[in-house]
Parts: sequence; structure tokens; C-alpha cells
Amino acid sequence: MLKIGPYSFHSRLLLGTGKFPDFDTQKKAVEASETDILTFAVRRMNIFEPDQPNFLEKIDVKKYTLLPNTAGAKTAEEAVRIAKLAKASGLCDMIKVEVIGCDKTLLPDPVETLRASEMLLAEGFIVLPYTSDDVLLAKRLEELGCHAIMPGASPIGTGLGIVNPLNIHYIIEQAKVPVIVDAGIGVPSDAAKAMELGADGVLLNTAVSGAQDAVKMAQAMKHAVWAGRGGFEAGRIPKKLHANASSPLEGMSVL
Amino acid sequence: MLKIGPYSFHSRLLLGTGKFPDFDTQKKAVEASETDILTFAVRRMNIFEPDQPNFLEKIDVKKYTLLPNTAGAKTAEEAVRIAKLAKASGLCDMIKVEVIGCDKTLLPDPVETLRASEMLLAEGFIVLPYTSDDVLLAKRLEELGCHAIMPGASPIGTGLGIVNPLNIHYIIEQAKVPVIVDAGIGVPSDAAKAMELGADGVLLNTAVSGAQDAVKMAQAMKHAVWAGRGGFEAGRIPKKLHANASSPLEGMSVL
Amino acid sequence: MLKIGPYSFHSRLLLGTGKFPDFDTQKKAVEASETDILTFAVRRMNIFEPDQPNFLEKIDVKKYTLLPNTAGAKTAEEAVRIAKLAKASGLCDMIKVEVIGCDKTLLPDPVETLRASEMLLAEGFIVLPYTSDDVLLAKRLEELGCHAIMPGASPIGTGLGIVNPLNIHYIIEQAKVPVIVDAGIGVPSDAAKAMELGADGVLLNTAVSGAQDAVKMAQAMKHAVWAGRGGFEAGRIPKKLHANASSPLEGMSVL
Amino acid sequence: MLKIGPYSFHSRLLLGTGKFPDFDTQKKAVEASETDILTFAVRRMNIFEPDQPNFLEKIDVKKYTLLPNTAGAKTAEEAVRIAKLAKASGLCDMIKVEVIGCDKTLLPDPVETLRASEMLLAEGFIVLPYTSDDVLLAKRLEELGCHAIMPGASPIGTGLGIVNPLNIHYIIEQAKVPVIVDAGIGVPSDAAKAMELGADGVLLNTAVSGAQDAVKMAQAMKHAVWAGRGGFEAGRIPKKLHANASSPLEGMSVL
Repeated sequence: MLKIGPYSFHSRLLLGTGKFPDFDTQKKAVEASETDILTFAVRRMNIFEPDQPNFLEKIDVKKYTLLPNTAGAKTAEEAVRIAKLAKASGLCDMIKVEVIGCDKTLLPDPVETLRASEMLLAEGFIVLPYTSDDVLLAKRLEELGCHAIMPGASPIGTGLGIVNPLNIHYIIEQAKVPVIVDAGIGVPSDAAKAMELGADGVLLNTAVSGAQDAVKMAQAMKHAVWAGRGGFEAGRIPKKLHANASSPLEGMSVL
Repeated sequence: MLKIGPYSFHSRLLLGTGKFPDFDTQKKAVEASETDILTFAVRRMNIFEPDQPNFLEKIDVKKYTLLPNTAGAKTAEEAVRIAKLAKASGLCDMIKVEVIGCDKTLLPDPVETLRASEMLLAEGFIVLPYTSDDVLLAKRLEELGCHAIMPGASPIGTGLGIVNPLNIHYIIEQAKVPVIVDAGIGVPSDAAKAMELGADGVLLNTAVSGAQDAVKMAQAMKHAVWAGRGGFEAGRIPKKLHANASSPLEGMSVL
Repeated sequence: MLKIGPYSFHSRLLLGTGKFPDFDTQKKAVEASETDILTFAVRRMNIFEPDQPNFLEKIDVKKYTLLPNTAGAKTAEEAVRIAKLAKASGLCDMIKVEVIGCDKTLLPDPVETLRASEMLLAEGFIVLPYTSDDVLLAKRLEELGCHAIMPGASPIGTGLGIVNPLNIHYIIEQAKVPVIVDAGIGVPSDAAKAMELGADGVLLNTAVSGAQDAVKMAQAMKHAVWAGRGGFEAGRIPKKLHANASSPLEGMSVL
Repeated sequence: MLKIGPYSFHSRLLLGTGKFPDFDTQKKAVEASETDILTFAVRRMNIFEPDQPNFLEKIDVKKYTLLPNTAGAKTAEEAVRIAKLAKASGLCDMIKVEVIGCDKTLLPDPVETLRASEMLLAEGFIVLPYTSDDVLLAKRLEELGCHAIMPGASPIGTGLGIVNPLNIHYIIEQAKVPVIVDAGIGVPSDAAKAMELGADGVLLNTAVSGAQDAVKMAQAMKHAVWAGRGGFEAGRIPKKLHANASSPLEGMSVL
């Protein structure tokens, strides 16, 4: 069970809903993933335009927890405004804070992310900030009271996987709230590796929506998260430099 | 479907049967893995000692294809002798050729592996050689007529995963017979990565039998192989250096 | 030439002076490195205790630029106090800002580092902050007016080298002030790689002072920085997946 | 000193002479590298065409040991024929055995390389085989009596660096003759890393001849080999998972 604030979820895979080729593929991929939590950018909602097509129109939204995010915000104030808009429209009180600091890398701005998280916590939101893998930044976000920490594996949409497993390890080691690895996942083994490092969940979008067969990839990611979590819980064999010699330490300078 | 010679298998996970803490764990792990093929060292069989405990005594062997291997052989002649012993005792005519050239690294001897494979093919065996990831050696084994190629991810029992994905890629790219990544797998993400590279199957043993919870790890590996195969078939997103810029090539000099 | 604020230096290798086995080794290693800039923790100076041994007693300090750092500070205020103490004792007006946020990993605190840098810039210091490899944090430090940015390769003293070359690349790509890779360097190839990524300099200490032969390692690091800088300026060959085929892009999904 | 058979060399950098943009650049790069050993393909010599331009025409060949190689050979017999041609034309009795098994990857054929080496040793040559990083193949080549072993870092001309440091480590660990890492080097840090692993030398060509500034890259490679060798001899600090905690082993499962 993944527990975030007062909520519990069976699935540890969080799925973004953007960039699918069509609504039908989106629907089937969401179902194949067996996710419990769907994320989406509030700015893409047609809240005040009921005659516009709903971006989740084929999905039975009652079966999922909808996790709105503040994508598009470049300052804390914009993020807060977007979050309030989401709440006003009757969505869940959980909010994924996303304050981007650079249009080229889409990496998060640490200062605005901290400020936005603090302001939203004061407003009573359940706050899940998307952050870099800066270890002390993650600690500060937790100390503010954030309900989960969402460090990126690599920049959004790059598919580069976990570039810095060391920082993800440190963040998980120190965290007392759930750590959900977010952004940059490219293939199932990336998702599995995040879980093997001890992450509580994985959030991904492009890896599925941009795959040649999005539905099959969604299913593969479901298995990957199970595989990685199982591997973490099962307790891996130690890495060794030689199978038949007792010098594990040496390996450190070779690989 | 994984096809090796005249045989077809639903599962792409091949499981070794050695080094489990007890027969009960072995049995449960085998079941949890949903494997179709069990490998074991012929020298561990008590063929001529019917009063000795059977090393697979709790397993319903009729449900599996038993793939004997020639572990313990240091020459082609020894490997052939072991293979014939297996056949004589009524086992499958498939044989995993394993001729180790070094007691410290347990890496295979290329010359004896080639010779043993050639001799066993002449005897009518279905031959699956365990080999290094030497690309031209794999090609020669295929040209001899081997029915599958089994390159190691890293040395047996080390849990280091796929040290050289480039060679595994080359071997898969050139092969017309199945490629089964064998040895060195440590965690589910390693198995998933092998499958994402396009491998037809993964063979592992210590990663499961040596895990703190072998049964849970067996189940995790099952999901990992499904995840990796699904990811391969689904067609991954390309890796990019920047999400929002069109310069994928640059990445080559950075990562 | 490495230019930091109003200063210019021939060497791109900055050397820390701590943790050497003895003053004689320290002296010889400093000379072998051919560095122009020596860093040290202000708190280790015996400014008000002239009868105590000087921690640089064998070094002809007039030949070097002394770059004091604020190691030991956990808040911006402590860092500022330490920097002022250094200035008051007649040292250079350059200061390396180091505000550690975690005793276990010795990683820098982003918020206090930003605050300390801002306060010290207001006081007229030439400010070089030691920071994580958070890309947007580095950008903010530069926007404040910092004279160089010093992202860590990996945590202080770990010898793990450049764990995240992607972030170092992004930081260098966006920076208009010098980027000096600081902390975590273990071997000469790590230093060379930092320079190949386009860094303007490398700062290291433990890799030399903790080596079995510190003087020889200092000399090796000198060559490594020259090698890496030369490689960067010379323009490397592109990475290719096959020597004799024109599909460089494919490589992205393999390695 | 690098000792190969009866010969000794000051430089541990072996330089190939092919693919330079012009003879002048070739000459200057050779000088900048401070190499003692130049390699070249015998088939490129104009031995019987004295009126043709000499491919080394600007180089004072008396200052170097010329190491001919058998590039172009696809069988042992071709390699032997080429080697004899080189000897007949008055070149050094050292020969680099190069028998390529695949036009796409340019990887060596293990069986023909073994055969060629055996035949050339019987003829009294000083034999240096270019081989894959197959550990047992390297051992067999040494057992035949080869005077040095030359495992590839990655395929010729790819610039991918040392893809499998584990195998290079094993080969060096077991070898009693010099190990010279050959092929695939892209940047100075690759050459330094090879030397840090304990290699006796590095052979490269395209990394220099194909660089935008070949002369500067040649100089950078010279420093890189010195840096890496110095780092190896100086004895590196151990890699640690935390600077301030005593759990080096843990690191094995993270990185």
C-alpha cells in the first residue's frame, strides 16, 4: 500500500494523462497500467467551458484519484493560483507542485518550489512537490510538511532514466514520507530500478504516451513497478567482484 | 513464445535450481517464477543412487522442461561425457554447454566451448552454449548450428547485471537463433534490461536462490521479464538530451 | 587562463590543503600539482594564536592565491562571520561559500548557500559557492552575481567521481561565469572528464591528500586537468554505435 | 618503462598513423604525443612502389619503433602472409595481429586471432594480438606465448571508451605480460581510466586523427596516459557511499 497523507493506494504507479495520440489509446493505457492515481495539468482542464471536449472524456474518473499538477507555473504565486482553481472545481485536495525554472531542460526551480509548497501547506493542501534530486532540498521540503517528495530521475520527457541513483538513494534513506520518482523514466527497467532503490512509487507519462504501442508499454510499466518493488522487498544478493572469491570491496574501484 | 530448436515455451525466464536454502523454498520459488525450463548441473543428479535424496524431489518435474548443463566440465570431452550421461538417463536432448576456464571468475573457455558445441551438435543434441559476450564467438557458435546463444551479463554469481550492453546488443542484432542472457543477473531491473535489449530470454539462479526471500524474488523476476519484453515490443521513446530541444545527438558525448 | 572576478590563473587545478599526513607531504604535493590556488577552512587558521603551528607552515604562501572557505558553517550567518574573519586577517577577498546541510553526506544546503552568497556579495566579496549539481540552483547563484559556480561531482571525500555528468553539462551550458567542479573526485580520469565536459577548473583535496602517494597523485592530477582541458579544446570524435555504419543515434538506447 | 619482449619504451602511448587529414598534421601529432611506437597497416605501405608517396613521409622514422599490423586480414593465413611481408621489407620483428571477423563492428575473430598468433610465434615474431575483452581468450593468447595482450576498450573508431572495465580488470589481474588497451578510446579520460585500471599502455588512432585539432588531442592523450599511470601508481582513495560513515559496501547496490 502506498500511503500519501490520509490516502491509501494499491498501485505504486502514478500515470500522467498528457500527450497520448488519442482518447481511446489514453483510456486503454490507463486501464492496462492498473494505476490508482492519474495526474494532469490543471491548465489543460476545460473547467469553465463545458462545451469543450474533456481531456479525460473516455476515462471513468470515479475509479481514480485525480492528482492535479501546477504545470505551467513559473512562480510560487502562479502555482498557488492553479492549485486553488483545481480545488474550487471539486478536485481532490492533493496537488503536485511543479514550478519549472528553465524552458529548455524543464527542470524545477528550487526556490519557487519551496515557496509554493509552503504556501499550499498553509492552505491545507496535501502537497507533493516535483523537485530535482538535490538531497538537502528534498529534506527541506519534507521539513516543511510535504506529504511526499517527488525527485526527478532525469529531465521531463528525456527518457534518460535514473541518472543519479546515489542522490535518489540518499533521499530515500533520509525520508520519512513517501518518495515517488518522477520524470525521465524511459523504459520498464528504469521504473524497476527506482523501486529497487526503495522508492515508494514511480510517476511517468511520456514513456507510455510516447511509446510506439502505448497500451503495451503501460502494461509493461505495471509489471516493472511490481518487479522492482518485489526485488526491493525480497532483498537482493550482494554485488561481488568475483563469484568465487571473498573480495567484494575491490569492486568499488573497477565499476 | 520462446522457440528453441523444435521446442516452444510460454515463459522467457529460465531458472536454475541450485543453491536454494531448502527444497521447500526451491519448490515455491520455481512455482512463483512461472518458468517452463529448469536448469541443473548433471553432476548433481543422483542417477545411479536411487536411495539418495533427489535434488528436485519436491518439484513436479513433469510440468517443466529440464535443461541439464555441463557445469564442472573444463574440457570439451568432459562436457560431452556429461551430456551423454544426461541423455542416457532419459533427460531432454537439450544441453546447456558450460565449460569454465577459470575457477576465480567462472568465465567460460571460448575454445573448449566451441569444441564441445561442435561435438554435441554432431551427436544430435539441441545445443545451448553458455558463452562470454564476445560478439564473434557468438557468431561462430551460431554458424556451427547451435540452437540458442547464451551470453553472460556478468560472471556467475556476481549479481553485477549487464556490464556490457553494447556487446549484448551486437549479439542480438546479428543472431538468427534465440539469445538468452545468462549469468550475473542481480535484480529484476537487470532482467528487464536484458529483455529490453531484445533478448529472447533470461536465465538466472543465484539472484533468486540467494535472495533474502527467494520466493518473492522469483515472482519479481517473472514480472521483470514480462516488463522488459513488453517494453521491447512496445517500442521505447528515444533518449533525448533536452526534453524541449531537438539535439538528441549531443547526448552521446555527455552520458 | 582561468579568470575569476578580477583575477587570472594559469592553472585550472585548485587544491585543498587539509588532511595531508604531514606538512612535508603537503608542501611537496602542492608543488607537484603546480596549482595557483590553495583552499583551506578558515576555522583551521590559528589567526589569534601566533605561537601555534601554522597549518601551511612549509608552504611559501606568497606564491599562491589563498582561497579561504567557510567549512563548518551550517547557516548563512555563520558563513558570513567566517568570511569576514578571513578578510580581517588580511586574506584575499575571494571566499568559497560552503554551508553543509547534512553531517552524513556533507552535501550543501541550497537555501543557506543562496542566502550566504547574497549576503557576501553585498559585502563586496568575490564569491564562489560550493553547491549541489542542481541546475536551477546554479542558475540562481549566477543571477545573484556569484563570480564562479562550484558544483560537486559527488559528495565530499567519497571519491565517486562525476555521478551526474548530465547536470554538470547543463550547468556549464547555461553558465556565463566559470564553473569549477568541486568535491568527489577520486582519480585523474574523473578530473579529466570534468574538464572534457567543459568545466573551467577542478577543485580537489582528499583524492590527493588521501592517496597512498600524495605527491605522485598531485602530479597525476595536474596532467589530468591538462589532458581534459586539451581534450575539450581539441574537439572529440563523435561516439558511434558502429565504426563502419552511419547510425549514431541508435546508440542512445543501448548505452 | 614499458617492456615488450626484448624491447623497452619510455612512452606508454602507442599511436596509429592512419586517417590523419594530411602528412603535416600527422607529423605534428606524432611529435606532440611523445610516443615511441607507431602502428600502421602493412597493406598501406608502398613497399614495391618507390615512386609513390610514403604514408609516413614527413616522419623521421628512425626515432620510432614501427609496429606493423595485419589490418585487412580475415584469416590467420592472410595475417601471417602480411606479417612476413612486413619482415621482408626490413621492419621490426614485432607484429600486431589484427584479424577482423565482422565488417560492421570491426571486432576481432577469436579463432583466427588465436591461430594467427600461434603461427607467428612459431615463425619467431614478437606477437601482440588485438583481441576482444574475453578474459579466457586473453589467457589463451598469453599461454601461447604472446608478448603482450591488446584487448579493445570498445569497437574500432567508435570512441565509446571502456565499455567493460570489469573484463579489462580481470585481464590485467591475470596477465604476466603487458596489457595494452587498444581501440575505442574517444577522449583523454578514457585513456587515463585504462591506465588507472593497471594497463601497461594504451593504443589509439582515430581519437587523435579524427579530432578537430589532432595535434592538441595528441598532446592531451600524452598527459592522459601520464595522469592515469600516475594515478595507478599513487594508489587511489577508496570509493565510499558516505564521506562521514563507515559503510563502503553498501555502495555496491546503489551505483
